[in-house]
Amino acid sequence: MKRIAILGSTGSIGRNTLSVVESYPERFQVVALAAGKNLDGAFEQARRWKPRVLSVAAEADADTLRKRLKQAGISGLEVAHGTAGTVKVATHPDADFVVSAIVGVGGLEATYAAVKAGKTVGIANKECLVAAGELISAEARKQGKPLLPIDSEHNAVHQCLRGGKMNEVERVWLTASGGPFLNTPRSEFASITVEQALNHPTWRMGKRITIDSATLMNKGFEVIEACHLFHVPPAKVEVLVHPQSTIHSMVEFVDGSILAQFSVTDMRLPILYALTYPERIQSDMRFDVGNLRHLDFCPPDMDKFPCLRLAYEAAEAGGAKTVALNAADEVAVAAFLEGAIRFDEIPGIIEHAVVASNSDTLQSIVEVLEADAEARRYARKRIKKTAEPRAASV
Amino acid sequence: MKRIAILGSTGSIGRNTLSVVESYPERFQVVALAAGKNLDGAFEQARRWKPRVLSVAAEADADTLRKRLKQAGISGLEVAHGTAGTVKVATHPDADFVVSAIVGVGGLEATYAAVKAGKTVGIANKECLVAAGELISAEARKQGKPLLPIDSEHNAVHQCLRGGKMNEVERVWLTASGGPFLNTPRSEFASITVEQALNHPTWRMGKRITIDSATLMNKGFEVIEACHLFHVPPAKVEVLVHPQSTIHSMVEFVDGSILAQFSVTDMRLPILYALTYPERIQSDMRFDVGNLRHLDFCPPDMDKFPCLRLAYEAAEAGGAKTVALNAADEVAVAAFLEGAIRFDEIPGIIEHAVVASNSDTLQSIVEVLEADAEARRYARKRIKKTAEPRAASV
Repeated sequence: MKRIAILGSTGSIGRNTLSVVESYPERFQVVALAAGKNLDGAFEQARRWKPRVLSVAAEADADTLRKRLKQAGISGLEVAHGTAGTVKVATHPDADFVVSAIVGVGGLEATYAAVKAGKTVGIANKECLVAAGELISAEARKQGKPLLPIDSEHNAVHQCLRGGKMNEVERVWLTASGGPFLNTPRSEFASITVEQALNHPTWRMGKRITIDSATLMNKGFEVIEACHLFHVPPAKVEVLVHPQSTIHSMVEFVDGSILAQFSVTDMRLPILYALTYPERIQSDMRFDVGNLRHLDFCPPDMDKFPCLRLAYEAAEAGGAKTVALNAADEVAVAAFLEGAIRFDEIPGIIEHAVVASNSDTLQSIVEVLEADAEARRYARKRIKKTAEPRAASV
Repeated sequence: MKRIAILGSTGSIGRNTLSVVESYPERFQVVALAAGKNLDGAFEQARRWKPRVLSVAAEADADTLRKRLKQAGISGLEVAHGTAGTVKVATHPDADFVVSAIVGVGGLEATYAAVKAGKTVGIANKECLVAAGELISAEARKQGKPLLPIDSEHNAVHQCLRGGKMNEVERVWLTASGGPFLNTPRSEFASITVEQALNHPTWRMGKRITIDSATLMNKGFEVIEACHLFHVPPAKVEVLVHPQSTIHSMVEFVDGSILAQFSVTDMRLPILYALTYPERIQSDMRFDVGNLRHLDFCPPDMDKFPCLRLAYEAAEAGGAKTVALNAADEVAVAAFLEGAIRFDEIPGIIEHAVVASNSDTLQSIVEVLEADAEARRYARKRIKKTAEPRAASV
């Protein structure tokens, strides 16, 4: 019986994880959950899963939740809140496996705490590795515990890597759908609307990650994640556009063999893989291989999608550069979604924040969070500068 | 230093193996070679590789070779001949690894002897496993030594299988180029010429295997080989047509993940893999992943290519059925190449021989060879019956 804690239990990955747990009650047990602001969702999960601890974001919500649970006659579970609550969930002594799925840097401290507490961690939170990859992966190595990727691409890489040893890896190939603007001429990028950018061809996801997929920044983040997860330099991580997103990623070995992984596009599959690794167990998520017809590929266009180039540059430089990349991207994407900047202005905002940040190695999560806040301030200032003259001229 | 014996050293696989050995002189050493009728080739290999034993097919050739070597001042190597000579090479006490690459059932006894002598065997000879797969794989298991596939498809499967345990395998997917008649209407099969059939789209190979690729019998043999190599029933081995032959094969796991292997189409790659397994070493055989563009797939048409269906049926029945399948196919293909029968008459000849054979488990290589001879007689008789009325009517 594997005992599981979930950071971000009411989000998409959290709910998919619970769906996997539900399918295999003899294998998995939920011991701790960290929800966010979704109070109804948290209440339902408390009722259904009876975790030992359940954490929510705000103190007031925690109070409300305690009352509702009491009224419903549900007892024996501790309600916590805030970062302390999330850390409590992440380090719960009964948990063997922690799913890190809080979106944004909000999950950073708890994820690091889980790794430090010697838990096996399934990583679905991009920001953890983009912003604090060096700290987290160093700590995981120290603890001798694996970081198991839940992202479909990195999960695919993890599977392909079983075909050889780490020193036999020539390159990691991350596939990219190419986003909705793969075939849009660059000259039209200035007029891309929010609606167009939110229309991702293969995956249904949150708004920020959908925009990040449209700019290819998401793929850039994945390059950085791959470096930390698999201890390879950015030069050994390549991106290949594959519009069908059938092949999730590939590994090229030194002898010239390449292994590729594919499956249905269902997040429950990489979650199941991470939860059961090194075993594989029967699932009903079958890809109809016999009906495979066409797979297309092409190289990414870094001129058209400068965010990918920025990510490689930040990854090479290291230190606070990748923190700034992530922080400025989040701010720039929010500004685009609010209509403050154009789609093709996103890369420029990020580039300025990255250039302004330094590349000294960050020594602690506190330093990461400071660099994050600074990059956000910088990006906001830049957005103002970009947007104001336009607003004035309207 | 791995010490290597090669059965079939002057053939295509043999020469490719020596090319690999040549590239890594610090890793591999040739200790014994079994050539066939190519006396000049055998002489050159003796001079270049100085094996401890070199075997040729005929006694007279062995005598000639001894004289030529003496004249050339080459000493210290034993020249042997016939099956006894091949077995001597296969079981040479100094050999760690035996490459089994003699085409046809002629390599059967020596390959079995190598396995029995506890050698690690790299299998490139199809007939060994099609005709005597049960005996050979049972013996390899008894010896606790792996059978390492050198065929590109099975080598790919072997690589993909590293992604899980054998009891986690849902299906093995062998890819097939589809041969030159993939898109030829069945109505034109009667008029297919030898020249058309010898024109394989992707691989340059011997005549028989090229015709076997055109009838899909080659893929049928590979299904049978896969069953023995990986201990899976025929129902768990599927064929998928993939005209580019980029992906060499795939493994589907119980959790729904599929791993696929691809590489350049160069036989030295699976040879290198087998010779170095479980390690992988650097090679210059690079597939340009960044230039990957389109991969196409479709299911095989068993009505158009009845040989594939026959192979599945023989594999399910077992015993002498697969021996007869292989033997009758060899005879039928030879008859087609000689112009005695039409392309579309090949499957019928084979089917009759398979139906006539029995499915009792074969207990020894002698029984395999007896069943092989009987099926050949049966097929020849059938060919006569098919061809004679036509010759008479001309």
